[in-house]
Amino acid sequence: MRPVAEPHGAAAVDALPLVAEVLAGNRKSVARMMNHAETTGDASRALIAEVHRHAGRAHIVGLTGVPGSGKSTMVRALAQRLRAADCRVGIVAVDPSSPFSGGAVLGDRVRMLELSGDPGIFIRSMATRGALGGLARATHDVVDVLDAAGYDIVLIETVGVGQDEVDIIQAAHSIVVVSAPGLGDEIQAIKAGVLEIADIHVVSKCDRPEASETVADLKGMLHLGATGDGESSWRVPVIATSAQSGVGMDALIATLTAHRDHLRDSGELEARRRRIAEMRILKAAEEIIRERVLKGGRETLDRLLDRALGGELDPHSAALQLLDGAHPKR
Amino acid sequence: MRPVAEPHGAAAVDALPLVAEVLAGNRKSVARMMNHAETTGDASRALIAEVHRHAGRAHIVGLTGVPGSGKSTMVRALAQRLRAADCRVGIVAVDPSSPFSGGAVLGDRVRMLELSGDPGIFIRSMATRGALGGLARATHDVVDVLDAAGYDIVLIETVGVGQDEVDIIQAAHSIVVVSAPGLGDEIQAIKAGVLEIADIHVVSKCDRPEASETVADLKGMLHLGATGDGESSWRVPVIATSAQSGVGMDALIATLTAHRDHLRDSGELEARRRRIAEMRILKAAEEIIRERVLKGGRETLDRLLDRALGGELDPHSAALQLLDGAHPKR
Repeated sequence: MRPVAEPHGAAAVDALPLVAEVLAGNRKSVARMMNHAETTGDASRALIAEVHRHAGRAHIVGLTGVPGSGKSTMVRALAQRLRAADCRVGIVAVDPSSPFSGGAVLGDRVRMLELSGDPGIFIRSMATRGALGGLARATHDVVDVLDAAGYDIVLIETVGVGQDEVDIIQAAHSIVVVSAPGLGDEIQAIKAGVLEIADIHVVSKCDRPEASETVADLKGMLHLGATGDGESSWRVPVIATSAQSGVGMDALIATLTAHRDHLRDSGELEARRRRIAEMRILKAAEEIIRERVLKGGRETLDRLLDRALGGELDPHSAALQLLDGAHPKR
Repeated sequence: MRPVAEPHGAAAVDALPLVAEVLAGNRKSVARMMNHAETTGDASRALIAEVHRHAGRAHIVGLTGVPGSGKSTMVRALAQRLRAADCRVGIVAVDPSSPFSGGAVLGDRVRMLELSGDPGIFIRSMATRGALGGLARATHDVVDVLDAAGYDIVLIETVGVGQDEVDIIQAAHSIVVVSAPGLGDEIQAIKAGVLEIADIHVVSKCDRPEASETVADLKGMLHLGATGDGESSWRVPVIATSAQSGVGMDALIATLTAHRDHLRDSGELEARRRRIAEMRILKAAEEIIRERVLKGGRETLDRLLDRALGGELDPHSAALQLLDGAHPKR
């Protein structure tokens, strides 16, 4: 493992040429560093720790919505407009159905290529399969890499259902929930899952006749869900958009800017940063434990499995025995 | 904490009247035991451990599909047919958009009431919010309760995206993926997320004109995804159904029975049980760690958070310090 100098600053960066290249915005180095973000192991962790010290400037925007909600199209339209305003844009796709992740039909992928030729845009799709519980952790680290590399705004695209997804999206500064008109079930899912964490609601495809009903439904739910505790002065807006015609896109960008300013001026940014840091530490702790158990305790686990399948042990009791046999390496 | 007798059998059951009532199929006791499944704490764990010893007979069927795929309607239609064949049916809804979970429109909920008046059916919806990573663990324990209470078949309904969802569905014996016709994005999501773990594909709403295309798409994907390693003799079928007209429902029930027999006769059931037990033990271990950290280490966590927000510590290093300060209670 490469030693990392204790004080940060130039000396530590010199010791880690890859970090310096990332800070300089070298695309190949950014991609290599993202591989480290998706890897466990001490060397990768040390590099990512160094990257983390240089992150903290980017505005991180999470966009969530079920497949078919139009959020991928929204991400593309947002990225194009932000580029026109000379912002450097990072895109992290955690949605297996996203065209950014290669899961979409040919037409979508061709449209994505329009973006990917632009050096001011960096697109990364996360491997969502096989991530042994470390997906949220890895996604946050990838966002750090883009942040440290000088991307002004990072758009995270995720499906908004499931604990992992919620963990990922809760690490964003501004959370945008995208709903398509006429998907009753979809709104219900959003209602139950992410309504309360949305900072901005967007209704996509607003040229469809059912769009005004969807806008009204969302406003009604927001009204019902309002707690009135006066903790935040931010009123969650519902913005009707059409990525095709461009309707509402200026309003969305203005609202994102207004939300970023609100976070900073109200002091809420600090509270949110603390909450995000806590979640990331707990996620990292889970991953460390899982590694220790899987590496050090494979034999123990197999023995416990035999006993569990024999009806002798329930999962909780087996887990207690596993943990008490899995001491940290140091 | 109530002491639990070491040997199982009648003595242990006598010591735990609630367990005995669950085994006798008392509905109120089943509901109370499910509350213990959703709770942490030593007393609840001891009760659930005892329930676990009496589980293992039920056929556990996981049904997954995005909101709008028609899986809730499918679950209802399946339950009605199984009841007609005199099966006792447990239903566990982990989908916040499911009418079983109260997230659906009025018409759906009224239709659900048709089921809920039947004493041979037990419906439980899982609280998906606020579950601190323990949703999969709690769901598996709730399934154990139904299993121990003598329900012959347990249907688990979940949205098929997200690690938590995949963890839940992978604990089923037979995994059914439900797709609605004409949802291109949806199929992509399924493709990336759960295609490989599906035992049976169901296309819902097959009276729609696009249904045959969806069936063909799924068959094409299965063909592409076939590994040809000959590990299993089970060929994943694609069944076109309509819960409204009843088309395909007999075929689905026959296929579920055939799959259960296949698992038993091929020896795959044992392999699957081992994999499920391993996953449940690791999930339980994660939950235990999280509790230990949150209970014992709150002050430590706050100190680490201050240092992390000051830029001094990255999440991984903070997690290492947290774990090394969080010793087990015993």
